[in-house]
Amino acid sequence: MKTVSEYAAEVEKMIRDLNLPDGKVSSLYRPIEYALSAGGKRIRPVLTLMGADAFGGKASEAMRPALGIETFHNFTLLHDDVMDKSDLRRGRPTVHRKYDENTAILSGDTMLTLATQYVSDVDASILREVIDAFNDMAIDVYEGQRLDMDFETAEKISLTDYLEMIEGKTGSLLGTAVMIGAMIGGASAEDSRLMYEYGVMTGLAFQIQDDWLDTFGDSATFGKPIGGDILNGKKTYLYVAAFEEGGQTAEALRAAYNMPAGEMRVKAVTRLYEKIGVGEKCRKAVGHYSSKALKALNATSLGEEEKEAFRKLAEKLVGRRK
Amino acid sequence: MKTVSEYAAEVEKMIRDLNLPDGKVSSLYRPIEYALSAGGKRIRPVLTLMGADAFGGKASEAMRPALGIETFHNFTLLHDDVMDKSDLRRGRPTVHRKYDENTAILSGDTMLTLATQYVSDVDASILREVIDAFNDMAIDVYEGQRLDMDFETAEKISLTDYLEMIEGKTGSLLGTAVMIGAMIGGASAEDSRLMYEYGVMTGLAFQIQDDWLDTFGDSATFGKPIGGDILNGKKTYLYVAAFEEGGQTAEALRAAYNMPAGEMRVKAVTRLYEKIGVGEKCRKAVGHYSSKALKALNATSLGEEEKEAFRKLAEKLVGRRK
Repeated sequence: MKTVSEYAAEVEKMIRDLNLPDGKVSSLYRPIEYALSAGGKRIRPVLTLMGADAFGGKASEAMRPALGIETFHNFTLLHDDVMDKSDLRRGRPTVHRKYDENTAILSGDTMLTLATQYVSDVDASILREVIDAFNDMAIDVYEGQRLDMDFETAEKISLTDYLEMIEGKTGSLLGTAVMIGAMIGGASAEDSRLMYEYGVMTGLAFQIQDDWLDTFGDSATFGKPIGGDILNGKKTYLYVAAFEEGGQTAEALRAAYNMPAGEMRVKAVTRLYEKIGVGEKCRKAVGHYSSKALKALNATSLGEEEKEAFRKLAEKLVGRRK
Repeated sequence: MKTVSEYAAEVEKMIRDLNLPDGKVSSLYRPIEYALSAGGKRIRPVLTLMGADAFGGKASEAMRPALGIETFHNFTLLHDDVMDKSDLRRGRPTVHRKYDENTAILSGDTMLTLATQYVSDVDASILREVIDAFNDMAIDVYEGQRLDMDFETAEKISLTDYLEMIEGKTGSLLGTAVMIGAMIGGASAEDSRLMYEYGVMTGLAFQIQDDWLDTFGDSATFGKPIGGDILNGKKTYLYVAAFEEGGQTAEALRAAYNMPAGEMRVKAVTRLYEKIGVGEKCRKAVGHYSSKALKALNATSLGEEEKEAFRKLAEKLVGRRK
């Protein structure tokens, strides 16, 4: 097995060498190259390459499907940015800001079909299961995004609702990325299922940790300003867990979230979270889902070296303390 | 073979019985049902059913793929309506007007994945060729739409450019719809290719005829007000053909298209078209592509009854004189 950064470098190289069509339809494809070249950790395609390598030493056969996974991920970011009217993505103007909204919609649609084409580039013997897994995952992501949108105006959200939302929006893609890799590597149905579980649970732990960091992290290492979720009125794990306390806590939280968006609001909400120890609850949930991920991983037929590689990846992803 | 209206009725029934998920994700799926239930001629899924029936009596096996073709078509209409900021579609509010723009984007994305799922519901022996054909067609449609958008601000468009645009935006989908049907029916590679050609050429004839009707048709039977393309400053076959005359004609056309959008502009442009006989040129092009469609159809191994059914369909689609 190679290291995560070696796999990530292979993904970067593939994206750099993509060579999408030029000429008259340049205006369709340049925004796609722009979106794909924004960088990031490339964690999802790395999972696909690692899955293929771990089960059959077939990372090279998984290159195009890995590209498909990354293209799909960037398609969702692109359309999400339009829906959220975001100006920046990884420090650069978003596609609809650099070009225009119609370009973002149409080039995003094109990315979804390109992703499907890239993912379909597998052996005929596994074509059906791979494209079914990919399409099912895409539906999970849309449903998760829809729930997230509906949560903005919802009066009451349970932790179950919240977990369903992040499983769709984040977990399913991580799970499917590594599972498609495993399928390409020739994993058994049971191993594929376990790797999917490993990916989904790692995704849940990652997302909850991300929510925690947004309030309690250190802005220098987190890479985003602290308190952004509170300022945007987002229904995070922290918010939902605190709101579930009910009674006066719920009332106080609602009041704090309704304060004018500014430092005062961030302070009031953070103080409330600290008072009821919801940060601790959050960290426990991260531990819970991380354990579930490792349990699934350990149950696979993989050798110790491969298991260790996936353990390290999960730790790298979730273990960020700041 | 059944009649076109019998096939269309089967498509309507299938859409009525779709039963997309309910409950929490209702807000994702109700707009999709709304979009799909708007009616229309259902010509594309009918082509798929007819293709399967003609080559192997397998219309029933083509039902889901036919639904996929219609779902894809409606996905493109939905996103096009967002991009064009259209208020009405078939006399009803468009999805982004009835719901909101973000819903239109996300439910549209979902329709593209649903379409891919439905189209993939074919025998394993033809899965690869069917999904490849479907994805290639989708790319053609996006490229055609992109060209159409770029034409709005382009100084000069040739008839070749225009034909490339409508082949992508209209022709490819009609061709692929009937070709996927033929593949399901068990057609040979050569017959599938010929049916694709039949569909593409019928699509070109249909689109050029539609351009002609928009200026020279009868509003009662055309179903839309006459002169809409001129009012919207659209680069139609008539416009491009007239502009290709160059010199004073091109200058006069540009001047007329730059008049305030109103009856005066429609009259001035129409008079110019009549003066240089561009309507006749347009009718000739319709005849040309219709003949090409029939030539491809005649070259297939289909029996006379089946050929006659496809001839009638093309006539129904293109032969509208008013």
